[in-house]
Amino acid sequence: MDVKQYMEQLGQRARQSARTLSAAESGIKNRALLAIAETINEQREAIAKANAEDLAAGERSGLDAALLDRLALTPARIDGMIEGLQQVAALPDPVGAISDLKYRPSGIQVGKMRVPLGVVGIIYESRPNVTIEAASLCLKSGNAAILRGGSEAIHSNQALATCIRQGLAAAGLPETAVQVLETTDRAAVGELITMPEYVDVVVPRGGKGLIERISRDATVTVIKHLDGICHVYIDDDADGDKALAIAVNAKAQRFGTCNTMETLLIAESRAEELLPGIAEALQKAGVELRGCPRTRQVLNGAVEASDEDWATEYLAPILSIRVVAGLDAAMNHIAQYSSGHTESIVTENYTKARRFLREVDSSSVMINASTRFADGFEYGLGAEIGISTDKIHARGPVGLEGLTSQKWVVFGDGHIRT
Amino acid sequence: MDVKQYMEQLGQRARQSARTLSAAESGIKNRALLAIAETINEQREAIAKANAEDLAAGERSGLDAALLDRLALTPARIDGMIEGLQQVAALPDPVGAISDLKYRPSGIQVGKMRVPLGVVGIIYESRPNVTIEAASLCLKSGNAAILRGGSEAIHSNQALATCIRQGLAAAGLPETAVQVLETTDRAAVGELITMPEYVDVVVPRGGKGLIERISRDATVTVIKHLDGICHVYIDDDADGDKALAIAVNAKAQRFGTCNTMETLLIAESRAEELLPGIAEALQKAGVELRGCPRTRQVLNGAVEASDEDWATEYLAPILSIRVVAGLDAAMNHIAQYSSGHTESIVTENYTKARRFLREVDSSSVMINASTRFADGFEYGLGAEIGISTDKIHARGPVGLEGLTSQKWVVFGDGHIRT
Repeated sequence: MDVKQYMEQLGQRARQSARTLSAAESGIKNRALLAIAETINEQREAIAKANAEDLAAGERSGLDAALLDRLALTPARIDGMIEGLQQVAALPDPVGAISDLKYRPSGIQVGKMRVPLGVVGIIYESRPNVTIEAASLCLKSGNAAILRGGSEAIHSNQALATCIRQGLAAAGLPETAVQVLETTDRAAVGELITMPEYVDVVVPRGGKGLIERISRDATVTVIKHLDGICHVYIDDDADGDKALAIAVNAKAQRFGTCNTMETLLIAESRAEELLPGIAEALQKAGVELRGCPRTRQVLNGAVEASDEDWATEYLAPILSIRVVAGLDAAMNHIAQYSSGHTESIVTENYTKARRFLREVDSSSVMINASTRFADGFEYGLGAEIGISTDKIHARGPVGLEGLTSQKWVVFGDGHIRT
Repeated sequence: MDVKQYMEQLGQRARQSARTLSAAESGIKNRALLAIAETINEQREAIAKANAEDLAAGERSGLDAALLDRLALTPARIDGMIEGLQQVAALPDPVGAISDLKYRPSGIQVGKMRVPLGVVGIIYESRPNVTIEAASLCLKSGNAAILRGGSEAIHSNQALATCIRQGLAAAGLPETAVQVLETTDRAAVGELITMPEYVDVVVPRGGKGLIERISRDATVTVIKHLDGICHVYIDDDADGDKALAIAVNAKAQRFGTCNTMETLLIAESRAEELLPGIAEALQKAGVELRGCPRTRQVLNGAVEASDEDWATEYLAPILSIRVVAGLDAAMNHIAQYSSGHTESIVTENYTKARRFLREVDSSSVMINASTRFADGFEYGLGAEIGISTDKIHARGPVGLEGLTSQKWVVFGDGHIRT
């Protein structure tokens, strides 16, 4: 069987099981999640053995330490997967909720019911714990899933797929509700993203290059996360202590996350007073500073920021700093350079806070809070399949609800249109 | 200037005016809508003259009567455009509404704010009144619009574009908030749907061929409406009078609309009793009946339905009829052949109604109501840019809210993540 046939078979099975899953009661889906958790616990040895195979192959092929670390299913990571499944089982089920139901003048009652998207394809790197995370979110939201993890994790993923199938079967759900690709052939990805008859949405997780390539080639809808070029703007009317705390936290709490601040904007009127303290704290945390000419006048030792700096997601201990005239200049900078992920203003001024909130077009817009809060768990979603930088459907952190949409429901009593 | 440059210029202007429009108060947007209405009223003569030019050219090039009718801006159609603008001005503004705002354990307050999509491109046929309809919905929802009407309507559309610009200017909004293409070059469409840097979403309106082509070639997100293959299922437990009324209304109230029933499914137990009466009423309304073998046993004179019939949107006085064993067979037929637009069950049985509502995956699912109700006005949206058969973002009738999405808003007081 060639890859095209193989993927079509997966697609057909997914489409079929999606109907069953869409109608499955919350209790049955939760039972499956807990059964998968139990099976993983029982199969620790088999999982560790499969993972050791992947790790050995990875070492032979020269994977670097960071990649090997992501690939490893340590006992703690296995515990984490089990806890994750239990947590998702405990979350409220979004499916079937009816809202805005009201009577219309014609006499019919019209409302919206939350429903699964259908079949979700997820493409991710060689982090086998993502297999469980993705499976659990799709399952709970009533979607059939087709999962394609990085090829370096193939044995680990197959071991986990066995646990998933056993858990599904134990709850009486079709084993094809979650299918993990058994091939490492890259052509399979190309098929997955061009089967709109079988796949309703694709969520790519990984590097920007991969996501851009998938978005370009896909005929299936893609929920995508490109850059996180996040800004904090310290306004003329900022509280100095809050500005310092937020700037340092937004940059230095973690360097490699998409909600980390990459550019600090500060009002001219506060630059001399506040920049030295912020710079000192950040440099202590090992952050390299790159600044506009005015920044470099205030801070000795800041490297010159180029135009490219404003457009770069460092994901590293580097921060670009720009002194701006005020709120409008800050919002213009953001409109030009932001990736639409998360921006925060530090101000005590009511009117300026209100304008920033309304006028900045990013998936998260904050007042007096660190950009690091832009996260599904912090927002109370309970879990997160990714953070979308798209403008339609789900923006920002995508949880269970982001894997659903709403259909219209109409209740009549023999009503006809006149 | 070539088409590519021209479209890029339009795109840049739209992107820029989208920021202003997104922040514009409801009162100012409404003032613009009413000013456009007034200008159209004042410019009736100029509009009629431009339209006469299009009609004359259309006659010369041999457009058929139906197309010429759609192209005509009669005084009644001009009145209709003016009323439409006034109605949209009177609708509530979806932009800026904040929902689900709540405190999180960290102390931050998190909610969602409804925001415009940004720049909306609309591609439609030679019906110049759609220019005003599309402009008004985009404007009210805070989106910049790029409109591309059919080439046969170019003079009419330019005359209307003048009115739109005047109305925008009178309200102090940028004239580039709504841009109507001044070229009939087909290459412009190709540019419009491949400029994701300037256009956030494209809504094609027209024939299935056009929409399929645009969906295939677009790199911009498309909100699309393909077929409306709508079903009514008359269940074993249907009330006979309701079944008759709904079947006749769903098929014969209007033949050419996307929410018209194309296939009637009926439970075996009720076929002999109910089909003859339904057939008689429909034949009186001029409907040709095509049936499965069992239908043809009950109804003399029904043509044989082929497999292709079940998959066809007739948009014409033709109905295919299939006798099924019961609810499950009906839902299987719908899962196989429906286009996901609208389906209705006629039943007095609570459990079967509840199953149909949950298990049928269409943008509108109805109980004891005519499929003809699937419409933005009937649902209370006040207006409709189209009906989406997609599964993400907006499903079914798309009104002002469908032209918006939600961003996250976070209120803090110097909060940082620990």
